[in-house]
Amino acid sequence: MTPSSLDALIDALRCLPGVGPKSAQRMAYYLLQRDQRGAHRLAESLERALSSLQHCERCNTFTEERICQRCANPQRDARLLCVVEMPADLAMIEQTLAYKGLYYVLMGRLSPLDGIGPRELGLEKLLARATDGVVEEVILATNFTNEGEATAHMLSELLAARGVRASRLSRGVPVGGELEHTDSGTIAQALVERRTL
Amino acid sequence: MTPSSLDALIDALRCLPGVGPKSAQRMAYYLLQRDQRGAHRLAESLERALSSLQHCERCNTFTEERICQRCANPQRDARLLCVVEMPADLAMIEQTLAYKGLYYVLMGRLSPLDGIGPRELGLEKLLARATDGVVEEVILATNFTNEGEATAHMLSELLAARGVRASRLSRGVPVGGELEHTDSGTIAQALVERRTL
Ligand SMILES: [Zn+2]
Ligand SMILES: [Zn+2]
Repeated sequence: MTPSSLDALIDALRCLPGVGPKSAQRMAYYLLQRDQRGAHRLAESLERALSSLQHCERCNTFTEERICQRCANPQRDARLLCVVEMPADLAMIEQTLAYKGLYYVLMGRLSPLDGIGPRELGLEKLLARATDGVVEEVILATNFTNEGEATAHMLSELLAARGVRASRLSRGVPVGGELEHTDSGTIAQALVERRTL
Repeated sequence: MTPSSLDALIDALRCLPGVGPKSAQRMAYYLLQRDQRGAHRLAESLERALSSLQHCERCNTFTEERICQRCANPQRDARLLCVVEMPADLAMIEQTLAYKGLYYVLMGRLSPLDGIGPRELGLEKLLARATDGVVEEVILATNFTNEGEATAHMLSELLAARGVRASRLSRGVPVGGELEHTDSGTIAQALVERRTL
């Protein structure tokens, strides 16, 4: 006896990570009963983000242009390429003000349990980027979790096979920790003490 | 440097109950990176639910018609009106198969801390419904939480002032418990043992 459009909304909310049937139901009632304006805004933002965002051709992060402003900035040192898992990690490194090179955002990490292997991560794009003839060093700044370490390890082997120098953030970042939850000072230190692989 | 449509999406996701800045960011990346189809479906479901759902003129639940199928069903006993907080509570009572009357769904409860008083709950609509000349007894089936009990108490006084007989589910439902998490047998028992107020 539930109206089909309500059922469909509850079902659609479950595509959000961490949202099960009970929270989806609670969210649907809340939006319809207490925040219809917020619901409209959410629907519009979703459509606008889906239609306007694309991956930067150079660094792979989300952007509304073909090449993002950071990659297009001639002030950045194009000889350094820092590889991070997510845009939030990039933001953390930018906050240190200790890095003036460019980035590559993987938008994930190797995660065999979730079916994310080298192909799903799109590593060919990174390898093409790293072998453009300008990049002299690739700084692997994936997280120091098991999955992030495995990703860095695979990347260092792929880069070595192509004659590209790779380095890794020093272990200033706590083992098992994530960049997003590390203070700027520690990340700055880890950049300075990066070790050649 | 975050694209504005990504910022707007992260911000819009925060209208969902229980979603803070970090989960909103995680949800946005997840949708854009791993489930664009789900994101489209969510946007469409939101718009469709917002445009097609309304409150039933008689029972106040969400419906796509002016009067929902349950209220329009002549097989139900129109002399009994059961008042519940949410559609999920109604569904729990229907599951007992112990009730053949009609319902009124408050879509909430008195909650002074959240600014929800008698006016926000729209109690005039319920009072008009309960004094239609056909209803002989109003069964108050709000939760046995503090807020649900306070709601039942206020309703019993408003109904008594209008000469309408009110009853309350018996205390078979655990004190402090919520209907949604109670088994059908206990709810059926509480319906049979309802006490006149
Ligand atoms: Zn870029
Ligand atoms: Zn109805």
